[in-house]
Amino acid sequence: MINTNSEKINEILSRGVEDIFEKDSLEKKLKSGKQLRVKFGIDPTSPDLHLGHSIPLRKLKQFQDLGHKVVLLIGDFTATIGDPTGTGKGLTRSVLTEEQVKKNMKDYMKQISKILDIKEESTFETRYNTEWFGKMTMRDFYSLARIEYVSQLMARSMFRERREKEKLEKKDLLTLSEFTYPLLQAYDSVMVEADVEIGGLDQIFNMLNGRKIQEKLGQKPQDVIALKLLIGLDGVNKMSKSLGNQIVLDDSSSDIYGKIMSIPDNLIFEYLELLANISIEEVKKIPNPRDQKAVLAKEIVKIYHGKKEAQKAEDEFNKTFRDKEMPTDIPVFETDKKTYPILDLLFDSGLAESKNDAKRVIKGGGVELESDTVTDWRKEIEIEDDTTIRFGKRKFIKIKKK
Amino acid sequence: MINTNSEKINEILSRGVEDIFEKDSLEKKLKSGKQLRVKFGIDPTSPDLHLGHSIPLRKLKQFQDLGHKVVLLIGDFTATIGDPTGTGKGLTRSVLTEEQVKKNMKDYMKQISKILDIKEESTFETRYNTEWFGKMTMRDFYSLARIEYVSQLMARSMFRERREKEKLEKKDLLTLSEFTYPLLQAYDSVMVEADVEIGGLDQIFNMLNGRKIQEKLGQKPQDVIALKLLIGLDGVNKMSKSLGNQIVLDDSSSDIYGKIMSIPDNLIFEYLELLANISIEEVKKIPNPRDQKAVLAKEIVKIYHGKKEAQKAEDEFNKTFRDKEMPTDIPVFETDKKTYPILDLLFDSGLAESKNDAKRVIKGGGVELESDTVTDWRKEIEIEDDTTIRFGKRKFIKIKKK
Repeated sequence: MINTNSEKINEILSRGVEDIFEKDSLEKKLKSGKQLRVKFGIDPTSPDLHLGHSIPLRKLKQFQDLGHKVVLLIGDFTATIGDPTGTGKGLTRSVLTEEQVKKNMKDYMKQISKILDIKEESTFETRYNTEWFGKMTMRDFYSLARIEYVSQLMARSMFRERREKEKLEKKDLLTLSEFTYPLLQAYDSVMVEADVEIGGLDQIFNMLNGRKIQEKLGQKPQDVIALKLLIGLDGVNKMSKSLGNQIVLDDSSSDIYGKIMSIPDNLIFEYLELLANISIEEVKKIPNPRDQKAVLAKEIVKIYHGKKEAQKAEDEFNKTFRDKEMPTDIPVFETDKKTYPILDLLFDSGLAESKNDAKRVIKGGGVELESDTVTDWRKEIEIEDDTTIRFGKRKFIKIKKK
Repeated sequence: MINTNSEKINEILSRGVEDIFEKDSLEKKLKSGKQLRVKFGIDPTSPDLHLGHSIPLRKLKQFQDLGHKVVLLIGDFTATIGDPTGTGKGLTRSVLTEEQVKKNMKDYMKQISKILDIKEESTFETRYNTEWFGKMTMRDFYSLARIEYVSQLMARSMFRERREKEKLEKKDLLTLSEFTYPLLQAYDSVMVEADVEIGGLDQIFNMLNGRKIQEKLGQKPQDVIALKLLIGLDGVNKMSKSLGNQIVLDDSSSDIYGKIMSIPDNLIFEYLELLANISIEEVKKIPNPRDQKAVLAKEIVKIYHGKKEAQKAEDEFNKTFRDKEMPTDIPVFETDKKTYPILDLLFDSGLAESKNDAKRVIKGGGVELESDTVTDWRKEIEIEDDTTIRFGKRKFIKIKKK
């Protein structure tokens, strides 16, 4: 049974949505009571999903919750070709081996399962595009290439930018292989008979091309939902692994909580819209940003680790930072030395990444020995049992004699 | 045994040649005594070869005469895709069925055999590119597409012109299918391991692309001979079927002779260079263009119909035009009418294409009744046995009473 609850349909059509082509058509489809096939293409190249990746997955979950069928399209064939999307610097992406694709996909499915119900066959389907491209003949390919126009492909902003760069640098960057990528992605929509396709802003061109190719091949064109992109923890750039401004889905509950608490205030409602299930209006009633963030952080931890872990992460965080208490579980560092140069101790215990790091944090007043700030980085520590050292904001160690 | 006669090598490198890439390399190859593989691609789309088509075939014959191997590459696969070359008006060529390709090729081979020795396996090889494209997988194709750059394809003048036209007319003209054509043609060179490729000026881009792709795939690059294009009988445009300014290889000896005699004088030496085997210098010694043309015409008929037919065509032509005699075989038109309006007679007998045509030729003074010029197009002819009517320069009819 398909749920046509109009509040939920509204949520699908608005929350986190940048644009819809065509909104009226999609709304009609959602209200029709027919089960829709909702395509989402994944390119199995990187195994670490972060919160940015969760946005389309969460949108898919909304469809799944209404009884629609999520079609996860795994571009295992196209991944071996290399789509340039998201390589940022205009470089041709390196080509993956089939082995790598297989391994990556296993990791992907595990991570996706934190958001989607991947075991329910009535609402979840997985397709690999090697299924059709693996057996496609050149004749088949050319019957497709015949209905695609060069000028339309060239209109893709990414290709135009690449060509501009080529002119500047006087070298060739865009291969024919990459240039045909939008056609292959469009054909995926034909093969899975997609009613809807979901993707990020950077996928709009390819998804709209899917509409065209579906129509040319006699199918009804899919509707396209383009989702907003997530700004990373730095508050400036799109969340991405290469920039390190990310929260990965595999992060521990305390890491997620802590990182969310560290975001700039102006991101709070964007994160709420894109990453949480709770009402934005409710959170707006909370008077200060610190407490708004706390609600957001707890909510996000709850989604990935459950309610109990969320409460624990909150308590822990408050103990450490708000209540200036130490966390309950402090790692222990054992040594048989009598005295220890502070820099060596901080480094050997794993608190500091290097002795320079240790020196820097001491100079910044960030190291405490039993609540006394250490000011001299040349200091020699006398080792006593149960001495607690705080390093930076959230790192602790307890010393034990061997 | 390979003939390395330097005069003949010189002939190969110069006669009818517009450009060679690279000439030194090709000369070296020809002098090496090694049998070269000389590729020529034919696109089996139109069955009527004309003298324009004979130019590359005659160049191939020169290679064959030295003992090299002609590799006739029949683009039976690519023909089903549609290369836009030569469609002139920027239109996408219609796609041929396999049936049509088969039939066309049979006709082609018959016509080609007038110039090339197609039965000598040591110097002639036929390859159909379905041999490799028919079993090519998408993975194979993409390993090719990965070494071809969009910017390089876009540099093809034909594609650039097409894109300009698109902008003017605001509609899409260039399909992805056609855009990839130069890559497929280049791959043909790889598959037949071509040492040399021969083609018209309009093929330079594709042939040079063959060099690039061969090198990228670890082969020595083919040398490329770009041949001059043949101006048609009108003295203005390239010879082509669609313009009707052509002499087809299947034309009768008297047709070929007559048409060559009708070319503008400034084409004589171009035709001699491109279409005949005789020495240009010798012909230059003949004092007047009319006699130069006669030598040319006889020579060309000789190539396609033999010496005897050439002599006959010359005699016939001279009888009709120079000696103002009638040809020996005049078609007969039988009628049981007593009188006949001249326009009707000219049309019914097949001399005129229409009554308007008949009227036009009469007004131009081109119709003679027993050597008397007919001036009145309203004239009623009294039918008498054996009356001869001349229509235009070379059409006659003899009237018989039924």
